[in-house]
Amino acid sequence: MSLVHDAPPGSSRSEAAARLLAAGCPLRVMKFGGTSVGDLERITKVAARVEQSLGGGVKAVVVVSAMGRTTDRLLTWAREIAQRPSRRELDVLAATGEQQTIALLSLALAERGVKARSFTGPQAGFLTDSLFGGARILAVDTTRVERALAEYDVVVVAGFQGADADGNITTLGRGGSDTTAVALAAALGAPECEIFTDTDGVYTTDPHVIPSASKLDVIDYDEMLELASQGAKVLHPTSVWYARRYGVRIHVRSSFTHTQGTIVTSLADATEGSMLSHRPVTGVALDLNHARIDLHTVPDRPGVAAEIFNALGAAGVSVDMIIQGVRGAGDSRQQMAFIVNRDLVQDALEALRPALDAMGASAEVGDGVAKLSLVGIAIGSTPGIAGTMFEAVSAAGANIEMITTSEVRISVLIPAEHAHAALRSVHSAFGLEDGDEDDESRSSQVNG
Amino acid sequence: MSLVHDAPPGSSRSEAAARLLAAGCPLRVMKFGGTSVGDLERITKVAARVEQSLGGGVKAVVVVSAMGRTTDRLLTWAREIAQRPSRRELDVLAATGEQQTIALLSLALAERGVKARSFTGPQAGFLTDSLFGGARILAVDTTRVERALAEYDVVVVAGFQGADADGNITTLGRGGSDTTAVALAAALGAPECEIFTDTDGVYTTDPHVIPSASKLDVIDYDEMLELASQGAKVLHPTSVWYARRYGVRIHVRSSFTHTQGTIVTSLADATEGSMLSHRPVTGVALDLNHARIDLHTVPDRPGVAAEIFNALGAAGVSVDMIIQGVRGAGDSRQQMAFIVNRDLVQDALEALRPALDAMGASAEVGDGVAKLSLVGIAIGSTPGIAGTMFEAVSAAGANIEMITTSEVRISVLIPAEHAHAALRSVHSAFGLEDGDEDDESRSSQVNG
Repeated sequence: MSLVHDAPPGSSRSEAAARLLAAGCPLRVMKFGGTSVGDLERITKVAARVEQSLGGGVKAVVVVSAMGRTTDRLLTWAREIAQRPSRRELDVLAATGEQQTIALLSLALAERGVKARSFTGPQAGFLTDSLFGGARILAVDTTRVERALAEYDVVVVAGFQGADADGNITTLGRGGSDTTAVALAAALGAPECEIFTDTDGVYTTDPHVIPSASKLDVIDYDEMLELASQGAKVLHPTSVWYARRYGVRIHVRSSFTHTQGTIVTSLADATEGSMLSHRPVTGVALDLNHARIDLHTVPDRPGVAAEIFNALGAAGVSVDMIIQGVRGAGDSRQQMAFIVNRDLVQDALEALRPALDAMGASAEVGDGVAKLSLVGIAIGSTPGIAGTMFEAVSAAGANIEMITTSEVRISVLIPAEHAHAALRSVHSAFGLEDGDEDDESRSSQVNG
Repeated sequence: MSLVHDAPPGSSRSEAAARLLAAGCPLRVMKFGGTSVGDLERITKVAARVEQSLGGGVKAVVVVSAMGRTTDRLLTWAREIAQRPSRRELDVLAATGEQQTIALLSLALAERGVKARSFTGPQAGFLTDSLFGGARILAVDTTRVERALAEYDVVVVAGFQGADADGNITTLGRGGSDTTAVALAAALGAPECEIFTDTDGVYTTDPHVIPSASKLDVIDYDEMLELASQGAKVLHPTSVWYARRYGVRIHVRSSFTHTQGTIVTSLADATEGSMLSHRPVTGVALDLNHARIDLHTVPDRPGVAAEIFNALGAAGVSVDMIIQGVRGAGDSRQQMAFIVNRDLVQDALEALRPALDAMGASAEVGDGVAKLSLVGIAIGSTPGIAGTMFEAVSAAGANIEMITTSEVRISVLIPAEHAHAALRSVHSAFGLEDGDEDDESRSSQVNG
């Protein structure tokens, strides 16, 4: 995955934890997304919720996103003013959204008598690379946040943003606020990061699409990483990667209720390891955000695939699912197809043009595809799962165009028109419906 | 004046100028206010205007304000969420307004093929003190801006903002973008700073109130400083102070036309020094933004005034116009009155409470006052001007409550209800109307 990397999010991590614990200050790291801080009234409610979580010397670091659709509105402005806006300036623009929220939440907290101080991403010590619009965190220097925690009850940090070594404002890309929160928890040595959202946890599939989807009490990092990468919107994949890498437990829970949510942790390490045998399949994700690109009359000689995918990589276009096949016997031309994120289709075509022109090949974009993924930590070691899945997809009338598999996932590309039917069919074939199975760990979540 | 100070805005000033000139790059410093960048269409027009001003190796530093009423909207949010919002957080919030404009203008410039790069105030090197909401510039480190000017045609800088030594975001207070522009011009060694606004120059009084007001071709720093301080909104007083201190010529002109505007410079130094004798009076300003505070039964003993005004000063409340008078013979109690900015009335009352309680005195707030100021570089040396002014005020039916004078200004406090009539009467008494006098230097401005 292009979003993950190996740099530590701060070297003073255990020191920080030791100091906070020595001072008798348990630390909560909480993240509230755009819906939770959607307007002034909701920001006031978040302030009340944060206040309730204090007491007994507890201090909190609260990471927030931009209010509601602010980021979208700002990016629409940019697109109205420029055909192909510079990513650096888009980041300068977008970063204002979270900056507004940190100020307003700090004001709302102070109004309740809670001592609070805001920090932008750069102020909070987030050093990133210079990949504007999708920057990676290189280090988190928590000096200022720790100094503020000594004096304030709550430190409010702008999610989604940082600065590169030259001081340019960067953003981590969509969903980056989750990553900010987990990276801060890791750097501060906090054991858990609470992600408050508009659902009350992680479900076997999107409950807006399949109302019978059931909530999970607990999910493994690897399963969550696959679900998140395959289109489940509840958590950003990079944040899950961070959490796994630094051993931070994530608690996904509702901003609006006090219900226990879903814990994302390492099930392999857990004493309840036997739980695994109860559920080879944890969830099903549906991703409608990809387009298929078909390359026609590509020469059938060594090095061609490398040329094509290097060009895409250099342009920052991640490629998912690839098929390649020679067309007809004796034909020296072959066909290739792969899928990319819809937003990157133009970038991909531009990056490919020189190579394709030189090869005498052409590209064709096919929209209307859906990627359906089955995720479970034991999928690779449980026989028969792929067969059951393909049968369920076929039963929904969907033709399978591509297949990819890993130890913890099977994905199929199907026509978008059959996506919801196939999702329902697969979800049901593995008994993932609410109350429809005998798995103790899951049935206990139903009324959670 | 509390807003001015003696720190240099950057020590590398002449070096920078020398380097730019050596590189054959004349530098224009241009500032566009909130109306000029009020929406996306206007930002596109500003981009076109900036592009027109380039050519022949010219480079530009463009300082911008927040779009239209953005700052007001943000501050309204803050007031909805908090009764007495922290000034630090207000600055974090308000600074997002200019940050949005720099990104959008940079995008609009790039769209026209102009190489542009944006900088926030902190990124542009603005180091301020920590007086949130009204911070003073301590230094301008132009290293990054100069480096960018070597590579880009235009550097777009967020006005109104900086950072203190701890990296906290600060704002310079209302109108601070003018100050940003002039300070940058000074630090970069540019001889002139162009302030683009919605009027085509500086007038003898507000032309929206007195349509016969005439535009000035040129005005002295001291006159402009007084006019700006006394309520003329065309320029921020601190910016004029900076311009005088560092010898930067200001050209106030329209964003919408190419007409020559008003040059603010030192007339004392000018070779056309004789011009001064032609106009003892340059303009009349009306300020409706003050409230009168009356203190009753204040003990008549030494040190009382110091106690009162020290308390106000410590709370950051600037006091203008003071009267003091013993009430009746044999009475050991006196009355005092002064005026403060309306927004600071509550701060003033709170700051005074302990002292007043200890003295057994009380405070009363009187709204509905107006301060009318006559400004001219030779007022102090020209006999009869005060008398003419007082007569004109009386003729408009206004009772004079307070008077203050300086070498270049006479101000009177009058009831707000007579403000416009008095303004008209005074403006006319000194022959300031458009085309209504024989001053060569001014009649030439009429058709500017």
